[in-house]
This record gives sequence, structure tokens and C-alpha cells, in this order.
Amino acid sequence: MKTYRFPAKKTWPELVKRPVFERKEISGLITEIFEAVEKDGDNALINFNKKFDKAITPHIAVSEAEINNSENEISDDLKRAIRQAKENILKFHASQITKTEKIETAKEVICWRENRAIEKVGIYIPGGTAPLFSTVLMLAVPANLAGCKEIILCTPPDRNGNINPAILFTAKLCGITKIFKTGGAQAIAAMTLGTTSIPKVYKIFGPGNQFVVAAKEYAQRYGVAIDMPAGPSEVLVIADRQAIPDFCAADLLSQAEHGSDSQVVFITTDLKIFTETIEAVEKQLGNLPRNEMARQALDHSIFILIDSIEEALEFSNLYAPEHLILALEDFEKFIPMIDNAGSVFLGNYSCESAGDYASGTNHTLPTNAYARNYSGVSLDSFVKKITFQHLSKEGLENIGKTIEIMAEAEGLIAHKNAVSIRLK
Amino acid sequence: MKTYRFPAKKTWPELVKRPVFERKEISGLITEIFEAVEKDGDNALINFNKKFDKAITPHIAVSEAEINNSENEISDDLKRAIRQAKENILKFHASQITKTEKIETAKEVICWRENRAIEKVGIYIPGGTAPLFSTVLMLAVPANLAGCKEIILCTPPDRNGNINPAILFTAKLCGITKIFKTGGAQAIAAMTLGTTSIPKVYKIFGPGNQFVVAAKEYAQRYGVAIDMPAGPSEVLVIADRQAIPDFCAADLLSQAEHGSDSQVVFITTDLKIFTETIEAVEKQLGNLPRNEMARQALDHSIFILIDSIEEALEFSNLYAPEHLILALEDFEKFIPMIDNAGSVFLGNYSCESAGDYASGTNHTLPTNAYARNYSGVSLDSFVKKITFQHLSKEGLENIGKTIEIMAEAEGLIAHKNAVSIRLK
Repeated sequence: MKTYRFPAKKTWPELVKRPVFERKEISGLITEIFEAVEKDGDNALINFNKKFDKAITPHIAVSEAEINNSENEISDDLKRAIRQAKENILKFHASQITKTEKIETAKEVICWRENRAIEKVGIYIPGGTAPLFSTVLMLAVPANLAGCKEIILCTPPDRNGNINPAILFTAKLCGITKIFKTGGAQAIAAMTLGTTSIPKVYKIFGPGNQFVVAAKEYAQRYGVAIDMPAGPSEVLVIADRQAIPDFCAADLLSQAEHGSDSQVVFITTDLKIFTETIEAVEKQLGNLPRNEMARQALDHSIFILIDSIEEALEFSNLYAPEHLILALEDFEKFIPMIDNAGSVFLGNYSCESAGDYASGTNHTLPTNAYARNYSGVSLDSFVKKITFQHLSKEGLENIGKTIEIMAEAEGLIAHKNAVSIRLK
Repeated sequence: MKTYRFPAKKTWPELVKRPVFERKEISGLITEIFEAVEKDGDNALINFNKKFDKAITPHIAVSEAEINNSENEISDDLKRAIRQAKENILKFHASQITKTEKIETAKEVICWRENRAIEKVGIYIPGGTAPLFSTVLMLAVPANLAGCKEIILCTPPDRNGNINPAILFTAKLCGITKIFKTGGAQAIAAMTLGTTSIPKVYKIFGPGNQFVVAAKEYAQRYGVAIDMPAGPSEVLVIADRQAIPDFCAADLLSQAEHGSDSQVVFITTDLKIFTETIEAVEKQLGNLPRNEMARQALDHSIFILIDSIEEALEFSNLYAPEHLILALEDFEKFIPMIDNAGSVFLGNYSCESAGDYASGTNHTLPTNAYARNYSGVSLDSFVKKITFQHLSKEGLENIGKTIEIMAEAEGLIAHKNAVSIRLK
């Protein structure tokens, strides 16, 4: 880990830079995969399962029996936990439903917006080291709430050709029954192009490795939208002297265990907290099963001792963290100073993992400084807002002259005529 | 124009396809322009002005005198019109401000969202055949309302090195005083990378030709966001027997005059309206100054006679038009059937040009079937929504077990520890 004591502001732009990881040149491979899926559809997916996931999957679609059986394969405790998390996520996302408000911008000129669900959405859930059923909740709950007519889910099979039962259980709980055994770039290609089994969708959500990320980028050429650009996960913790080093260390480590490229930043105004948090990180690290990954992430983490909380927030806004924890006594007064962050956790008991799983907020958030220009996933991510307007003849009379003058000044005479012909 | 009488549904997917225009291979040129701007900054822009716009511009920044003088160079009528349009646009976009609502998802687990303006935004306004000061209103009004701290505007100079005074006047009226004489891909590069004169921004808005579109796409590699993917403008009009052919024709032509690649679709259930609208288009076309462009657009326009309004809407949803006009008697009853559209105009007096200029709705809308998965520009386009959460110790106790169980099931033990360490 790297420590900085009172770094000069002119060094900050260097400090907030994310390490650039070498990105393998994989665009050729992505193109090949898309071409194979376009040409051979389901058969291509079956072959890729064999090749990349070492799995024999005669059928790409998960059967009803497999889905129903998942309930028997996970503990009651886990089912209860998933249900409670779902309830909280539903409650928070339901609060994001907006009411249509009609505005009379000029007399008898009525304008408003209405939400319409994106009809077809695809959710990608990675396989690999952790079965991310929590991400199923984070994407399927708002998709369902928004009213998306077709919600499909793709996830790679294990070596026995099966899907993790917690993923199947969670999907079913959220009303998703179109689940497909396919992962990586080929899953993204299938949702983009469609196959016999897999319907093509209008928007693709979900995390993934570099192949998935590259495939989502590539998919946009076909008119598909994606949730947001991707990058490694990150947390920035700001602590004052009332913070509890053991808590701060636990939060930093919960970020570090995500992967060796995870970003971890700790800023405090208090020397004692600074020293003790570093010690606590070292101490807690030893007991983690994923400690090798966390150790690598910590190698490029930064710990900063700074003069004031105001300065810490200035640094944080420049960094634009995905997760921001304010382990501060009077956190409320600092909220208005936050400009750039994905999700903010306030006080000593709001740990990041609360938001990762069960408090109700979404955990699909902007990384890699995208918190400057992107929001996290919310109900809005699954709808379009369509504007409507109604002008009576009188309404058009009220703004007609304005339209005619402006259209003429822009040299668009047919635009002017559309008014003139109605008012003459 | 192409006419279809009662086309079979199986032919619709072919009919809704946008014509594919040959896209010149310009990525090499875009890379070169970005490299030149990165290396030579303002000087590169000055050189490009000379090369592409035949303009001598010793200074890239528009001077205060130039901005102030614009007021004297346009008519009082135009000033009055721009002011009225601005007022309506402001009124409608102000209605999009959402209030923060705190939700207690579980006891003492409080979650909410707050809006924060994207700090730095760039607006691109094309030069060329029409000075699009209306687009200045559509982008600057919500940017200002959102509270963006830095709003800059780039637009190419004319051959005398000047900017159209209506653009300058409108920009100033909206509080924008950082205006720069640069156009095309180089303007996008400058806003992405920054130069001595031009600050770099986090999000770029605005229309443009194929070079601008390609540059906006390229800019995203640098972490910049853009308003939306681009395509030619389009209108789809659905008319019943009470529609007025002259009005419908005027609306179709106001779309067609945008450019030879504009998309125009007309659907009616009434043979008389069908025939008379086609005649009216031909008649009105002759009088248009931009009739050659409109004629080319009409060549690939489609006119459809159909059985029912329900079917017309089904076709429209498949097409997903940027602008949808319902020239229908009982338009209200059809609103719920609209799934995919950018902006909808209701009844005989809601012409598209009302929304293009002055009713208050935004005219920056999704084209090329992107109305299936994107919204038009709104206040939301200029803000991020940050989630906040506060859990008291009791709050964490209420959901702690759930977090621990889920984290463990995902194999993320440090996530679990962040809870356990707080609750033990």
C-alpha cells in the first residue's frame, strides 16, 4: 500500500488516476464470436460452452425442472436472506416511480412525460469464483418493476452443465424464467443478435470479465444499449477521529477482495486513525480466504493523511469513487459537498456490504471515475421517458408566431409552413 | 415515395428498417484529428479552421464584444421569439426536478437519491446550412437549470471567422459565455482533451455531421459521456379520416427538409386521406426553398394504408419513431398503446415544429429506432443521481444477518466480516 501525508494539491491529479491495466487485444476474437453466433446460433453457444466452460449442454435453455429444483438445493437461511434483500430492493426502487405531471407551458400548450418500459432486456450474470445471485436481484427487481415485457438471463454453466441454484432460485423469485446456459462474449452476442432459443434484446445489463466488457461495447454497433461502461470496483473511505479503525479496515478489505484490480482509498484527518487502520488492514487480511487477491489490490491502494474533511471531499470529488464511505461524526453537514460518487454510506454502521446486498440501493454503480458523468442503475435504467404534447388551435396561435420566426431564421421554411398552414 | 396498401405483418420488419447509408471509413482521420489537438491544442484548431472552414481565426474564444454585439445584429422579433421559446423550455424542464424522498427500507435503514449536476458539459452546435440556435436553447436551458458549473459551446466559424449572431445571442441569454470557434471532429476532440482555451468536459451534447458523430463515438474512449447515439431525423404520422391532408403533408415535409437522409412515414386507415395527403405533399413541395433535399428524402419515404389505428400503432412501435404525430380524433385512448417513440404530438394542431422550437419539450431525441432503448434529452441528461444510505447500529442489526448469509454464499468473506466486526 502507498501512504501519503498531506500531499500537495498539485499531486492530486496523479493520485486519482486509476492504474491502467494492459488491455489485451481481443477485438478480433469478439468479432469472430459474434460471427459464429450469427451464423450457427444455439449450436455456436453449445460449442463455446464445450470450448470455454468445459461443459456439455445439449440444451441452452434451463429447463423448468432445473429452475424449480433450485429451491431444494439451497438452505432455508439463504432463501430467507434473499427474500428480505429482495423486499428492501423492491421498496427502494418502487420509490423511484415518478408521477406524470402535465405542464401548461403556454395557454393551451400542454406538455408531459410518460415512462415506458424498455420492452426486452437481457441480464448477464458471470460465473467464475463467486455466484453473483445478488446481482440478479439488483437487475431483475427494477426490470420487473419497470414492466419490461421480456427479461432474459444468461450465465455460464459449470463443468457439469449446471447453473448455480442460488442464481436460479433468485431469478425465479424475481419472475425470470427465461434463463440460458451461456457465458462470456458469446452470451452478449446471443442477446444482441438472437438465436432460436434466445430472444434478442434492446438493452444488456450486468458485469463480466474483459471479454464480456468488450462484447458489450461491440454490441452497441447493433443498436443495443448497455447499462454503463465498466471498470474495476472501488471504495474511498473518509474518516475522522471518531471512526473505528477495525470497521474502516473491514470496509477497505471487502473492496479489495473483489479482485486484484480493485481500487481502495483511505483518507483521514487523524494520525492515530491513519496508523491504526493500516495496522487493522494487515491484521484482518491474514484471515481472508481471498487474501492473495486482496493483497494484490492493496499493493496499489492509497492511504492519505490530510488537513481537513473539506479537503478530503475535494480529493474524493476529483477521484469520483464508485463507493464513498463517510465515517464521520457530522456526516450530514458534508453531504452537500459531495459532487461525484456512485453511492454514499454515512456513519460508522453503514458498511458498503449493506448496499451490496440488502439495504435496498442498487449495487450496479459507475466505476473508473464515471461517477462524474453516469448514475448507477435504477428504475430509470429500464424505462424510456417519452414526451407528449397537445396544442389546441388556440394553443398553436399562442406560440405560432414564435415558431414561424425561429424556423425562418434557421432557414427551415417547411417547419414554418406547418404552423402557417394551420393558422391561416 | 413508396406506397403500401395493407401490407402483411410479415413484411413489416423489412418496412421498418432504416436505409443503410454508406458510412465512409473515417476512423483514421478522426484519430489524426484527436492527435493533432492533443499535441498542438489551440493552434491545431486554428489550422483546422483555415483548412476545413476557410476561416482565419487568430483567437479560438469568442470575445465578450462579439457576444455582446450579437444583440444588435438580430431583429427584435427574433429576440422576442427566442425569449418566449426559452421561457417555455425552462418551464417544462423545471417540472422535471425531482424531490429527494428518504425511504426507510427496513427499520433504521434509510436510503435516498440526490441529484448532482454533471460539473462540466460541452455543447456542440453545427454550422452549415442552418444556424441551429434552437438547439442552443434545448441544451443550454436544462444544463443551466441542472446547475452544471461549466457549460461551454463550440461551433464552427463562417468564412469571415464569425459566429452567427442568433447563436451568440441565444447562448448569452442562457448564461453561456465560454464560446469557441471550432467545428467538426476537432471541436469534439478539444472538449474531450482540453486545450489552453477550451476546458475539457465530462459530457458532450449536440448534433452534427458524420465527422462529429464519429468523433463523439471516439471521445468515449477517453471517459467522456455523450448525449445519445445519432441517426437521421424521422417522423411517423398516423391519421384517421378527420385528419387534414394539408396539415399532414406540411408535417411530413418539415421532416423531409432536414436532409436527404430524413425518414418520413405516413400511415392512415382512410383511403381519401391517403390519396389527398400524397397529393398535398407533391403540391407543397414545389414551394420549398430546400425542395431538392426534401425530394430526396421523400424518395425513400413510405405511405401506408392500413386496417386499423391499433395496427398503425403496432407498426409504429416496431418502427420506434423519433417523432410520432397522432392526427386522430380520439388520440387519448391510443396513448397507452405507445411503447416506443421519442416525442408524441397529439391532434391536428400539435405540429412537430411546435416541439422543435417553442412548446417547451426537448428536440434532442432518439432516432434510428433508438426510441426503443433511449430517452430524449431532459434535465436528467445533465445530472447524476447519487444514492445515499444511513444505517444506525440497530439498522445494521436488522439486516446484518441477511448480508452475512448472502456474502458467505457468494464466497465474499470480507464482505461478511464488515458486518460481523460491527455487530460483535
